[in-house]
Amino acid sequence: MTQPDTAAKRTVFIVSDGTGITAETFANSVLSQFDMASFRHIRMPFIDSLEKAAAAAARIDRAYDDEGMRPIVFSTLVNPRIHARVRQAHGLFLDLFATFVAPLEEELGVKSNHSIGRTHSVADSRQYHNRIEAINFSLAHDDGQLHSGLSQADVILVGVSRCGKTPTSLYLAMQYGVKAANYPLIPEDFERDSLPGSLAQYRDKLFGLTIQPERLAEVRNERRPDSKYASLEQCRYEVAEAQRMMRREGIRWLSTTTKSIEEIATTILQELRLTGMA
Amino acid sequence: MTQPDTAAKRTVFIVSDGTGITAETFANSVLSQFDMASFRHIRMPFIDSLEKAAAAAARIDRAYDDEGMRPIVFSTLVNPRIHARVRQAHGLFLDLFATFVAPLEEELGVKSNHSIGRTHSVADSRQYHNRIEAINFSLAHDDGQLHSGLSQADVILVGVSRCGKTPTSLYLAMQYGVKAANYPLIPEDFERDSLPGSLAQYRDKLFGLTIQPERLAEVRNERRPDSKYASLEQCRYEVAEAQRMMRREGIRWLSTTTKSIEEIATTILQELRLTGMA
Repeated sequence: MTQPDTAAKRTVFIVSDGTGITAETFANSVLSQFDMASFRHIRMPFIDSLEKAAAAAARIDRAYDDEGMRPIVFSTLVNPRIHARVRQAHGLFLDLFATFVAPLEEELGVKSNHSIGRTHSVADSRQYHNRIEAINFSLAHDDGQLHSGLSQADVILVGVSRCGKTPTSLYLAMQYGVKAANYPLIPEDFERDSLPGSLAQYRDKLFGLTIQPERLAEVRNERRPDSKYASLEQCRYEVAEAQRMMRREGIRWLSTTTKSIEEIATTILQELRLTGMA
Repeated sequence: MTQPDTAAKRTVFIVSDGTGITAETFANSVLSQFDMASFRHIRMPFIDSLEKAAAAAARIDRAYDDEGMRPIVFSTLVNPRIHARVRQAHGLFLDLFATFVAPLEEELGVKSNHSIGRTHSVADSRQYHNRIEAINFSLAHDDGQLHSGLSQADVILVGVSRCGKTPTSLYLAMQYGVKAANYPLIPEDFERDSLPGSLAQYRDKLFGLTIQPERLAEVRNERRPDSKYASLEQCRYEVAEAQRMMRREGIRWLSTTTKSIEEIATTILQELRLTGMA
C-alpha cells in the first residue's frame, strides 16, 4: 500500500476565539510565500473557553504525533489564559495578538481591551448596518434591474454581459459597505451608439469593466455552450464597442481578465477615491 | 477656533503591494483591542515599485510632521527592498511578512518565494473559479428563485423573510466557495404545516436561521414601514412557527440576532462540517 498524498503535507491549524477569518486571511497571505500545495488547513473557530482550548491543544498534539512534524498554528486568541493553554501543544505558533498588541500598547500609552468578543459588537454597529444596506442595494441594482435608486449609488459598474460586474459589486458592498450598482452594455446600446438612457446623468459614478474577448467567450460558453452569445466573433464585437463607448464618454475602466475580484474592487475604490465605510 | 475632531486621532496606514485586504483585516483585528474611534485609516494598496514606496514613505512622514505622533503602519510588503524603503519613514511598523516569514522558513527548511504578485495568481486558479461559480449559484438560488439546481447545493438556508439568509449565502459563496442556496419560509408553509415541497428531499443540507421577533420587526419596518408584514405580532407568529417547523423536522438552526454575517457563516460551516474550497 502506498501512502496517501496527504502524508507529506504539513498541517496548519487556524485557531481563533471568533470566526477565525482574520487568522485565515493572515495564514493564506503568509503561506502564499511558500508552496501552498504542501499544507493541509484545519479551522478551529470559537475557541473561547479553557475547555475548548484544551481540546484544541490535544488536536494539535495528535497531529504532531501522527505526522512527526510540528503543525503550524496561526492564531488570534485575545484572552491570555486561553492563548497560554493552546500554546502548551507542540506547534509553531504564529499569533497576531501576542505579537502586535504589546508594541501598540507601548506606542499608544494605553492598555488593550483583552476582552474576548470585543469585535463581535460589530453586529450592532453603524458600519455593520451600512454593509447590510449596501449588500441589499447591490442586489436590487444588479444587472440594471432597478433604476430608481441609482442616485444613491456610490458607483455604477458598466460593461458587457459576464465581464465580472456582479461579483465585483457584491464584493464592494460586502467588504467595504460601498453601494455598487451594475448595468450591462448590450448590443442595442452599441447600435444606438449611446449610453443607456438612465446612465448619462450619473456619468461621474460610472466605472467600466472590460475583458479579453477570448476569456469572455470561455466564460459565456460555460453558461450557454455553442451559442451566438458565446461566439468569439460576438465577444470581440461587444468588447470593442464597449471600449469605444467608454473611451468616447470618458468613463474610467480596467480589464478584469487577469485580476481577482479583490484586486478589481480595490482598484475601483482607489480610482474613484471612495474610502469605503466598513 | 477649536481643533477639528480628527486632530486627536492617530493615523493608521495600510500599506501593501497587493489589494491591502489582508493588511486591513489584520489591522482591524489588532486595533479592535483598542478604542477604534481614535484611529483614522488611510489605505495605500498596490505599492509595488520603489517609486511608489518612496511616495508612501513621504506620505507617512507628512502625517508624522502634521500630527506630531508616529503613525501606525500595518503592512504586507513581500519585496525586501520595497519594504526597507517604506520603513525609512517615521512610523510604528507592524509587518506580517517581515515578522512571520522568517520563522516559517526555518521551520519548513525552505526559502519563501519573495516574489511580488505571488498571490495574484489566485485569479487563474481552480479555487478562484469555484468561488465565482458559487457566487453565481447563490445568486441564482436566492430567495427560492430556482429549484432546479438544489441538488448541487452544499447548503440550503431556510428561515422567515429578512432573517439574514441572503447576505449569509453570498458570504459563504464569496469567502469559502460554498454553494449556498436560500429558501424563505412563508405563512403558506406554516398553514400547510409542512416544509416547502421541493425542500423535503434535501433535508440533510438544510440549515435554519432565526431571529428575535423584535429585531425582525425593526428590519422589516425599514423596508415596509407600518405594514402588517413588519408588525411585531406578525413577526412573532412567523418566528414561532418557523422554529416549531425546524424543531419538528430536525433542522439545525441558529439565531442571527446578535451575530455578524461572518460569525453566522463560520458557524454553519462548522455545524455542517463543510470545509470550504476557497
